[in-house]
Formats: sequence, C-alpha cells, structure tokens
Amino acid sequence: MKALIPYKKKNAKSRLSPALTLEEREEFVELMLRDVVSSLKEASIKEIDVLTTPDNGVPKDLDVNVVLSEHDLNEAINEYLEQENKPIFIIMADLPMVRACHVNDIVSRTEDVVIVPGKGGGTNVIFIKDPSNYHVKYYGSSFLNHCNIAKARGCSVFIYDSFMLSTDIDEPHDLVEIMLHGHGNSQKYVNERFDMKTGKARAKINAAGDA
Amino acid sequence: MKALIPYKKKNAKSRLSPALTLEEREEFVELMLRDVVSSLKEASIKEIDVLTTPDNGVPKDLDVNVVLSEHDLNEAINEYLEQENKPIFIIMADLPMVRACHVNDIVSRTEDVVIVPGKGGGTNVIFIKDPSNYHVKYYGSSFLNHCNIAKARGCSVFIYDSFMLSTDIDEPHDLVEIMLHGHGNSQKYVNERFDMKTGKARAKINAAGDA
Repeated sequence: MKALIPYKKKNAKSRLSPALTLEEREEFVELMLRDVVSSLKEASIKEIDVLTTPDNGVPKDLDVNVVLSEHDLNEAINEYLEQENKPIFIIMADLPMVRACHVNDIVSRTEDVVIVPGKGGGTNVIFIKDPSNYHVKYYGSSFLNHCNIAKARGCSVFIYDSFMLSTDIDEPHDLVEIMLHGHGNSQKYVNERFDMKTGKARAKINAAGDA
Repeated sequence: MKALIPYKKKNAKSRLSPALTLEEREEFVELMLRDVVSSLKEASIKEIDVLTTPDNGVPKDLDVNVVLSEHDLNEAINEYLEQENKPIFIIMADLPMVRACHVNDIVSRTEDVVIVPGKGGGTNVIFIKDPSNYHVKYYGSSFLNHCNIAKARGCSVFIYDSFMLSTDIDEPHDLVEIMLHGHGNSQKYVNERFDMKTGKARAKINAAGDA
C-alpha cells in the first residue's frame, strides 16, 4: 500500500489571505503536510509519495518520496496510477485533522474504492485498491465523478463519512475547526496566531490580541 | 431511550433567504423534521419529543409528542432533562442527512455522553445517558461547553465524527450537500427547485431553470 499526497506550496491557499500573509500561508501548508504525513506513518503507511511541481519544495527532513510532475492534477495522478499496482491512498495535503484511526478505518474496508467526500462535492481522500482499473477526475463535483467512474469500472464503493476529513482548510473559518478538533503542528500554528471569538453565533477566528 | 428534537418553524432559517422565500423555508424545515423523525424511527427510537413554542405547528400526522415551552433553548432543554431519567438523544431538526445507522452507532457507544460536533463549534447531536447528571449550553462554541460540562460532571465522552451530521442546513451552499448526500423529503424538495452548478470550483446551487 502507498499513499499519494498532491502538494502545492508556492502561492498556496489564496482564499486564506484575509487571515494569513503569503509567507504565512506557505509556512502553514507545509505544517499541514507534516501533520498528514505523520498520521499516515502512525497508521503504518510507510511508502508515501508527495506529488508536486519542480518549484514546490518538499522539506528534506520529511522522509517521503517526491514525485515531480508539470502536468495538471488529474493528468499527473492518472499517470501515477497507470504505473502502480499497489493499493493507493490519495489524500489532499490540506487535511490536517486526519488521524491514524481514519486511515486505518479506510484501508480496512473491503470495497474496491473508498471515497471521502469534502464540502461542496469535493473528494478529500480516495482509496483505490486496484489503480490499474481506475482514474481520477478532480475539480467541480469530483465526488460524483468518482462515484460514476467506479460504477463504470464495476468497482464497489464505500462512502466514508467524516467531518474531520470533509474539512479541507481553504477559508479563514476553517481555521476554527483546527483549533477545536485539530492536533499537531497545524493546531499549534493556528493557536499561536488566533483567538476564538464566540458569541451566540458560531465560533470565529480573531487575530490573537485583537479586541 | 427517548429523542428530543428542538424545532422552530415560524420565520425559520433566515440565512436561507437568498435561496428560498419565507413560505418555502417554513415548508422546507417541516420536511427536514420529517426526515429526522423518519431516521430516528427506523433506528427504533419510538419515543420522540419535539420541543417547540406554542406558535410553531408540528404536523399532526407525524406521530411524535409535542413538548411546548416559551423559554429559550437552553432553559427549555434543561427543564426537560431535569424531569427525565431515560437516556436522551437530542438532535437538531435541520440535520436531514441523518440516517438510522448514525443513530444506532451513537446510541450503542458505551460512554456517558456522545457529542456530534457541527461546523464552527456547534453541537448537532448530543446523546446523554443520564440526564439527571448533565445540562446543556447551546450557542457559541457549544461543542466546547458540552465537553467541559461532561468533564465537570465526571462523564466520559465520545466525539462522533460525521460529515453528514456536522452539516446543519443553514445557508444556500448547504443545500448542495443535500443534493449530493441527502435522501427523503428534503432531497426531493431541493432537487425539484435547484440544479447543481459545477465548474472547476466547488459545486453550487442554481435556481432550477436558470442558465
């Protein structure tokens, strides 16, 4: 079994710009990557490939393989899948709330494909038993795409229901979820920078020190 | 075991107003309530109390007990808990994606209290084994409140992780989740009124028939 983590550092997460500067965002995505890698390793996935572009530095101390591609996300992953025969656990790098127990639950399913939906029809994790009989189609409602591809290929599917894994960190309000439910490097980073603002409405972030 | 569903129909869900008129919202919250009740019954919770105010009509054909209170949510629920000795499953009425399997999973936990977090620090479901030894504190970061109350009362806690139950239907973009992952009356209602708009970004709703 192998894990594949698509990763983009350079100019990452522009929708977080109301809360974090470019430099902070680039630092933060690296910390989220570290948390994802750490949970995968704790779950005993030892072979981890980080898929990135040549200009996106993956930290040297991370003990992962770096797979470089200049192609777009779908093309790059599908090229990768074509050359693999082990089951592949594809997880996005912006899911720092993933824990080893999630990974273990997902890889122990008996279905051919396990899909973890993200908000708004995204696919946050997909576990593919036989990569030679599957291809991915991210963007838009990739959740529906991935269900349909499984159907067309005759693959059984399990939809894994997790709030922690549905929450990719894209917008400032997502940072609150890290404060409440996260762990590791990313939680430490967010806690150092923000306070939680609670009133009658939902909790929101507040720059630390602001009134 | 009993279920308690706080319910507000009159002028409900104002944040859905960009997508639904007042009349439609009142119709829709009733359909969501029906879906919640239906999943509870399928999970064999036969005793269902709907907590509402005198001016909020609960449909007669629903086969639930109506509990009326003019107090605010916390006061009304805490009065209810004080008079109960059976385990109580408190679920919000705007969680139409709940399924019987969620309910069964939650009530079969051995911990004293099971909390299902919602987005932004909310509590979407809380299952309380011994209502005489617990009280609720909704609004703001009720998730943290409920964890702290359990700690203060010496109750063991399980945090139940579910995207479907974390998604209370508050804003137009939540309707997409019903289209993708819902079922029953609420899904039928949303599908009849909206199309899904997918591009490279997340799926969004579109008024049915719009370009």
